[in-house]
Amino acid sequence: MDVAYINPFIESTLRSLDMMAGIKADKIGLELKDDHITAYEISTIIGLTGETSGSVIISMPTSLACKIASNMLMEEIQSINQNVEDAIGEIGNIVVGDARRTLMQDGHSLNISIPTVVIGAGHRISRPGNVPCIAIPFRTEFGDFEVNVGITEN
Amino acid sequence: MDVAYINPFIESTLRSLDMMAGIKADKIGLELKDDHITAYEISTIIGLTGETSGSVIISMPTSLACKIASNMLMEEIQSINQNVEDAIGEIGNIVVGDARRTLMQDGHSLNISIPTVVIGAGHRISRPGNVPCIAIPFRTEFGDFEVNVGITEN
Repeated sequence: MDVAYINPFIESTLRSLDMMAGIKADKIGLELKDDHITAYEISTIIGLTGETSGSVIISMPTSLACKIASNMLMEEIQSINQNVEDAIGEIGNIVVGDARRTLMQDGHSLNISIPTVVIGAGHRISRPGNVPCIAIPFRTEFGDFEVNVGITEN
Repeated sequence: MDVAYINPFIESTLRSLDMMAGIKADKIGLELKDDHITAYEISTIIGLTGETSGSVIISMPTSLACKIASNMLMEEIQSINQNVEDAIGEIGNIVVGDARRTLMQDGHSLNISIPTVVIGAGHRISRPGNVPCIAIPFRTEFGDFEVNVGITEN
């Protein structure tokens, strides 16, 4: 996978969380994954099509999801509900949409699907084995989370 | 949502299960959903982009997933493992790819992302509230399953 595809997602994650929810995050690693994604309690999945095909999965613990939703909606939310699910889908949409804009400015063409949100303690997410996936863990004061970018060039 | 989008998914589901896994299915309903998808143990999610944006989610119980994989791989599989996950992703890919072909013959344009597979007892899948979703339940002798088509026209 062309590493040029990764940086826009790192930057858009940091920017979107800060802008939309006032939460500062630090990238704490970057690894190529070929096994299952170890997911947190809530994940949002956005499909990519165009000159590349793939998906972006953002997984996080309940604590961080509630904090993001609380800050976006300006009300205190303690547990996962419809508002939190919508907020996490929306954050996924913004992160991937922002990265897409950067990639298109660099001459790439890609389209993104609407986000789906998966909720469930201990859910796992699997991707076709032939699609390389880069996992990017981040740290915030409300918990760690992970952005997974899996792209194959068509 | 244009109902013309739905029939190709019903036909491709019946055809793909029969062709790939030798399993006959019957459509047992069709409903418009606006709440959460009540998921089975394993789901595959495929994003759609193009003149429409959305996603297709196929959810099924472990029993059916193992039977599909067993028949596709011609070996007896009793519990969910990497082979089953790959087989379910592949079935999702085939169902949506086949429906896409029909839709393109009818003059529609859409692209599909690679499948992601979600595993976990009691996982739920949520979609943005503004995207109408049609749930199509099917029955097989190895368990019921559900195809969910959520599409919004751009």
